[in-house]
Amino acid sequence: MQVIGIKRALNALRKVVPARHHNLLLAYVRLSVGNGGLRLFGTDEVADVELSIPAETEKEADFLVPGEVLFDLPASAGEEPVALEVGEDHLYWRVGNFKAEIRVAPVGGYPEPLFPPDGQEVFISREVLAKAVARVRHAVAKDSYRGVLRGILMEFTDTSLRLVATDGYRLALYDLPQAAPFQEKVVVPAEGLTKALQVLEATEAEEIAIRLAPGVVGLNASGQALSARVGLRLLGGAFPEYGGVIPKDFVAQVLVETQVLREALRRLEVLADEDNRRLDFSLGEGSLRIAVKGTQAEAEEEVPAQVGGGALLPEFSLNARYLLEALPDEDGETLIRLSGKTTPLLVSPAGKGDYRAVLVPLRT
Amino acid sequence: MQVIGIKRALNALRKVVPARHHNLLLAYVRLSVGNGGLRLFGTDEVADVELSIPAETEKEADFLVPGEVLFDLPASAGEEPVALEVGEDHLYWRVGNFKAEIRVAPVGGYPEPLFPPDGQEVFISREVLAKAVARVRHAVAKDSYRGVLRGILMEFTDTSLRLVATDGYRLALYDLPQAAPFQEKVVVPAEGLTKALQVLEATEAEEIAIRLAPGVVGLNASGQALSARVGLRLLGGAFPEYGGVIPKDFVAQVLVETQVLREALRRLEVLADEDNRRLDFSLGEGSLRIAVKGTQAEAEEEVPAQVGGGALLPEFSLNARYLLEALPDEDGETLIRLSGKTTPLLVSPAGKGDYRAVLVPLRT
Repeated sequence: MQVIGIKRALNALRKVVPARHHNLLLAYVRLSVGNGGLRLFGTDEVADVELSIPAETEKEADFLVPGEVLFDLPASAGEEPVALEVGEDHLYWRVGNFKAEIRVAPVGGYPEPLFPPDGQEVFISREVLAKAVARVRHAVAKDSYRGVLRGILMEFTDTSLRLVATDGYRLALYDLPQAAPFQEKVVVPAEGLTKALQVLEATEAEEIAIRLAPGVVGLNASGQALSARVGLRLLGGAFPEYGGVIPKDFVAQVLVETQVLREALRRLEVLADEDNRRLDFSLGEGSLRIAVKGTQAEAEEEVPAQVGGGALLPEFSLNARYLLEALPDEDGETLIRLSGKTTPLLVSPAGKGDYRAVLVPLRT
Repeated sequence: MQVIGIKRALNALRKVVPARHHNLLLAYVRLSVGNGGLRLFGTDEVADVELSIPAETEKEADFLVPGEVLFDLPASAGEEPVALEVGEDHLYWRVGNFKAEIRVAPVGGYPEPLFPPDGQEVFISREVLAKAVARVRHAVAKDSYRGVLRGILMEFTDTSLRLVATDGYRLALYDLPQAAPFQEKVVVPAEGLTKALQVLEATEAEEIAIRLAPGVVGLNASGQALSARVGLRLLGGAFPEYGGVIPKDFVAQVLVETQVLREALRRLEVLADEDNRRLDFSLGEGSLRIAVKGTQAEAEEEVPAQVGGGALLPEFSLNARYLLEALPDEDGETLIRLSGKTTPLLVSPAGKGDYRAVLVPLRT
């Protein structure tokens, strides 16, 4: 059978199949032929991926193929279509003058998919979800002993889907106007979710469907040449009650061109203390002055800004990296709203309510 | 003083200045102002770089600036010109609204340049030398206990400059029609030479000059906005006598489209044994068949070729990586000439004599 899109499918699948795992079977990809198509399945038992490709199939087959071999083949193949044939103990892969035969193994003992076989679904734009996840991911804990902080909280309600991430020092949240047929709060591993979105991107589908089952979230998307299902194990443990952290009353605010602020922060950040990356901010009339004191050099820069309440709160300090990562991606203006000298502040794109980041000022 | 090109100079200089070194002074850059310009000097005592930038200078100064600070500044600066001012204990760096002041230190104890102050010079096109070095570098030993094999032999004669590299398993040589006013053989550290060429590239000069002194080679180039001098310590020890390794009599040869061969080798290489990366070659009529036997898969591909002497030497085996790295860069054809089943073979671009690589077949 001629298989279009198998290279794309394998490049997506390799994001999940582990190169090394104590369960040696996981180094294999399960390949199933039949029902008018080809299915490739791989798992690391935390996340799994099934990719379906339509193909004219003559017979049925179901076996394991070593991932190491399968993932190396497409990288070096040209643009020509791949012809696959299934033999007794071998899979034959042919591209142009190149012929490979790969030993296969029986499927016995291979893990079953995590992906929930049924359940109600939320449909959501793939790009919108990917953007929201990318936006809050900076606040996910990199290496917390509290595993749940390495996840992204997804709050499904009948009016919206909210994503929340926090590492205990800062918080980011994103509200999507996406009604769900169920009300649930689940914590999805951030790394797995990012990989899942990369896999789903390979389908080129515009929409993805999300379904829940106990301990598992399933994401799937159907494109013209490729369909994908991803199952992810949810994280256990209590996600922090974050409602009280978000300030509601403000004493001062700064409105500044995002790109101008970003460039100034980058210039100053390189001189900051490596531990707390402290920058000192002073609110002036029509300007925000940012200063840094390093051990070998000091520097400052003034950026134009619309400032309100500077008399009440003339100075504050922030971790440069945290502020840079919290800035909105888009062009336009950033609004920084301060609730007090040592209480949380809000960073958000001016005039938009979908994304907010919470930071805590450094003590002076 | 307004200094154009200082960012380019610092980005070149940071290739040499070590981030960590037991001599803490080496983390500093020596900055000299005067004589109508600015000079920046850095060294790791194996290689050193001096960059000169024309500038309108008012006073003279000579001091050390922490490299860590100086190298971080340009990365985050925009396209605007940099204004430098020299104070008592500080260097002032100003770009637009950004102002930094950097503490400086006296130059006492800082190493003197390696660059030979005088001597006869060979002038050579920068691009031609860079290409020749890049071409033979694959054959340099990565981690040989014989330090001299981590170098490139430069043989200067009154008719040519020859570059030779070998790791004891393979050899590459490149002949440049470049007469020298001296006859010398020196071994230059390959890594240092590559860095030196990157530094000299920043000058945008077309030509570089090479001079020798005991234990040192100096390379310099003068561009419009930037001039650079690089000093490199030569490697000691005897470079192998390579003349006898280059085969002169051949029993068979293969002429093949370089790009077609490269792609086939890449496809097959991924399945080869990780230790010796063995590929098996068979000479047919009008074709070269290449096969690989892995533990989990085997594969083969036939590429069109003009074959001579296939009856005398129908089969041979090679390390795929070595052959791939030895292939000519340019489009066109590759000529492989075999001297026997276990004796060295020559790889070269068809019809050109400047570049040759010597490989030894794997035993069957």
